[in-house]
Amino acid sequence: MPAPSSALRIALLGCGVVGTQVVRLLTEQAEDLAARVGAPLELVGVAVRDVDAPRDEVVPRALLTTDAADLVTRADIVVELMGGIEPARGLLLRAIEHGASVVTANKALLAQHGPELYQAADAAGVDVYFEAAVAGAIPLVRPLRESLAGDRVRRVLGIVNGTTNYILDEMTTKGLAFDDVLRTAQELGYAEADPTADVEGHDAAAKAAIIASLAFHTRVTLDDVACEGITKVSADDVAWATATGHVIKLLAIAELTDDGVAVRVHPSLVPATHPLATVGGAFNAVFVEAEAAGELMFYGRGAGGAPTASAVVGDVVSVARHRVLGGKGPDESRYADLPLAAADSAVTRYQIRVLVDDRPGVLARVAGVVAERDVSIAAMRQQGETADGGARLVLTTHSAPEAALAATVEAVRALDVVKEVTSVLRVEGA
Amino acid sequence: MPAPSSALRIALLGCGVVGTQVVRLLTEQAEDLAARVGAPLELVGVAVRDVDAPRDEVVPRALLTTDAADLVTRADIVVELMGGIEPARGLLLRAIEHGASVVTANKALLAQHGPELYQAADAAGVDVYFEAAVAGAIPLVRPLRESLAGDRVRRVLGIVNGTTNYILDEMTTKGLAFDDVLRTAQELGYAEADPTADVEGHDAAAKAAIIASLAFHTRVTLDDVACEGITKVSADDVAWATATGHVIKLLAIAELTDDGVAVRVHPSLVPATHPLATVGGAFNAVFVEAEAAGELMFYGRGAGGAPTASAVVGDVVSVARHRVLGGKGPDESRYADLPLAAADSAVTRYQIRVLVDDRPGVLARVAGVVAERDVSIAAMRQQGETADGGARLVLTTHSAPEAALAATVEAVRALDVVKEVTSVLRVEGA
Repeated sequence: MPAPSSALRIALLGCGVVGTQVVRLLTEQAEDLAARVGAPLELVGVAVRDVDAPRDEVVPRALLTTDAADLVTRADIVVELMGGIEPARGLLLRAIEHGASVVTANKALLAQHGPELYQAADAAGVDVYFEAAVAGAIPLVRPLRESLAGDRVRRVLGIVNGTTNYILDEMTTKGLAFDDVLRTAQELGYAEADPTADVEGHDAAAKAAIIASLAFHTRVTLDDVACEGITKVSADDVAWATATGHVIKLLAIAELTDDGVAVRVHPSLVPATHPLATVGGAFNAVFVEAEAAGELMFYGRGAGGAPTASAVVGDVVSVARHRVLGGKGPDESRYADLPLAAADSAVTRYQIRVLVDDRPGVLARVAGVVAERDVSIAAMRQQGETADGGARLVLTTHSAPEAALAATVEAVRALDVVKEVTSVLRVEGA
Repeated sequence: MPAPSSALRIALLGCGVVGTQVVRLLTEQAEDLAARVGAPLELVGVAVRDVDAPRDEVVPRALLTTDAADLVTRADIVVELMGGIEPARGLLLRAIEHGASVVTANKALLAQHGPELYQAADAAGVDVYFEAAVAGAIPLVRPLRESLAGDRVRRVLGIVNGTTNYILDEMTTKGLAFDDVLRTAQELGYAEADPTADVEGHDAAAKAAIIASLAFHTRVTLDDVACEGITKVSADDVAWATATGHVIKLLAIAELTDDGVAVRVHPSLVPATHPLATVGGAFNAVFVEAEAAGELMFYGRGAGGAPTASAVVGDVVSVARHRVLGGKGPDESRYADLPLAAADSAVTRYQIRVLVDDRPGVLARVAGVVAERDVSIAAMRQQGETADGGARLVLTTHSAPEAALAATVEAVRALDVVKEVTSVLRVEGA
């Protein structure tokens, strides 16, 4: 056992909801943390924009500073909770340059500049830890990076955005339309005033990039993620999903295809019997398919001050322990560097719902254009008739490349007997 | 980055289903593993009872030996997959004494002699890793030990035995009796010829001891676990559970009570809406309640050759990386040493079903003896009448100490109006 070390200096960048909870945990659990690390953790400064802003009394006023650039040079571990790209990126690079290890919950930064940070940290012999950036309190980084180090991950399906999961849940249980649920969610504070990042899938896409990097030891950035949000999901889609034993979930998907790593975010039909189907409300879950381990799932709170702070402080302990032992954690720069597959090479299944003329031969014509694109039909059925003499058809395909499926939808849409393509949803986890 | 190291010598003790899969992973993934570790992993020997027994061709015959005591002295990492207490215990202590790190999947050994092994390893500056011993392929050790290092675990509820989970599942979906399902499970190879360890909860109890040690940084051994199996669960219990929106699961429970750490294994009524309720068949899941992180769940395959091997090789990689970096992992000897609570101090809720005389005043008398033990009643209802003029009562309590609840059951049983206490089940996760 190493001799008890002198205190490790912790600097905090940003002190909002999560930062306040981090200060609380560092204070309240000080004794336990010191025992686990092998040295006390000493908070040496908290960088904020306005030292006079009102804040929780757990945050020592004497430690507040606006000079983050100075603070990062006098810490052993820098915890970044500012969010956004700059000045976070510059400050963390500066911290690393000065020999500090780094803990961050900043998914946007990692999704865009992760490799730069990992490389700098590797060169400096320090750690970059980021458990809180992926799925809040859910331990995911260590399982993917360490527990599965002897295995080969095939596919990751994640519910990684609580806001959209809540909205889809409410649409399902209450039969409401997207706009109505969004409005209520905003009133309740479950959705932002500007909900774009959530409902258009951008937040999930950033997390998908980080998850894919971890799962496949490959550089994946936000630009590599094909992304579609939930704004086009209709109450009718949800009702039909329920009627056919499915739920609609916004999934972040990272998988190994014949062409390399494919990463995408889109609303998906998930069988009601799948473990992801029962993940409700603000919860997150990440489902992993590995060659030897089989199916794994990690479930928990994906956001919130205390849960996120728990993940941050867990990282602080790991990083601190490495410093006490004189080492660093697993090396992020050992990338397998698998090729990234084009988004349209992903293999998936479509459920296409169309409004057609109700006359003989329509089914055959629709089936014909599908077959021409080498897509095979798993099921085709009539959903009912419309008032004006049209019919609704529901067509579910077998697995096929995204490109072929997209072309199929266009071909179906172009048929003169087709009045409208009502809905196109991918089927996952079946 | 450290300079590429010379090969790390791996010794395998035992070569059954899991051992064979470990050899396969070490062989097939050799290149990836070397990259992740920073040095090649070289299998130097496989200790078996009979070198001439038939085995998979992936196991190199030239490496087979019956001299395990010699083998453990010429390895950097010893992987123990023999099971049982001796000679496994002696061999691992000998390996540690000779400076080897140890990976084991042996839950019985850890549940009884874990502290001895951790202490020896700590003194020798080597690692003992055991992810596969707790819940097969489910990453649990690192999340509990590292990710939650800055948090405080309150409670762990685990489905950690696939055989009993399968049996309860079959009883639920098919309405069959325990004996009938067990017989079929044995025929299908899902249950052992001697199913005692599984159905009496002993296997789950060993895992509960390991989980409790991890979650509360406290020495817990098998003897500290209060254990009740599923042999008394009737088809009627299952049917009633279903009718009232519950499922029956064999839960391993470790929790922090006012008196310390309480660890128990017993069949439990779990609300159908709880994440554990949908964990079916041979799957395992561990549900964790932590102060800051909130609710977390880890799900996956709890047994099987390939899943267990995945966890073992993940541990080998971690341990190997520590050796390349010249360190060791988190220190198992830093126990918080919380007191162990008496089994009957655990706080839980009971559902008691009784057969009573159907005459005025019976309900009041039953309610009376419950109240006398300071137990409050959450619900009391009549389940129906019997042919001979008796009535069935179902009584659900609020949370109360196990001792008070047990005394309540005895007092109810002693009432002259009570013909029979049909069933006593604890309610968890509600």
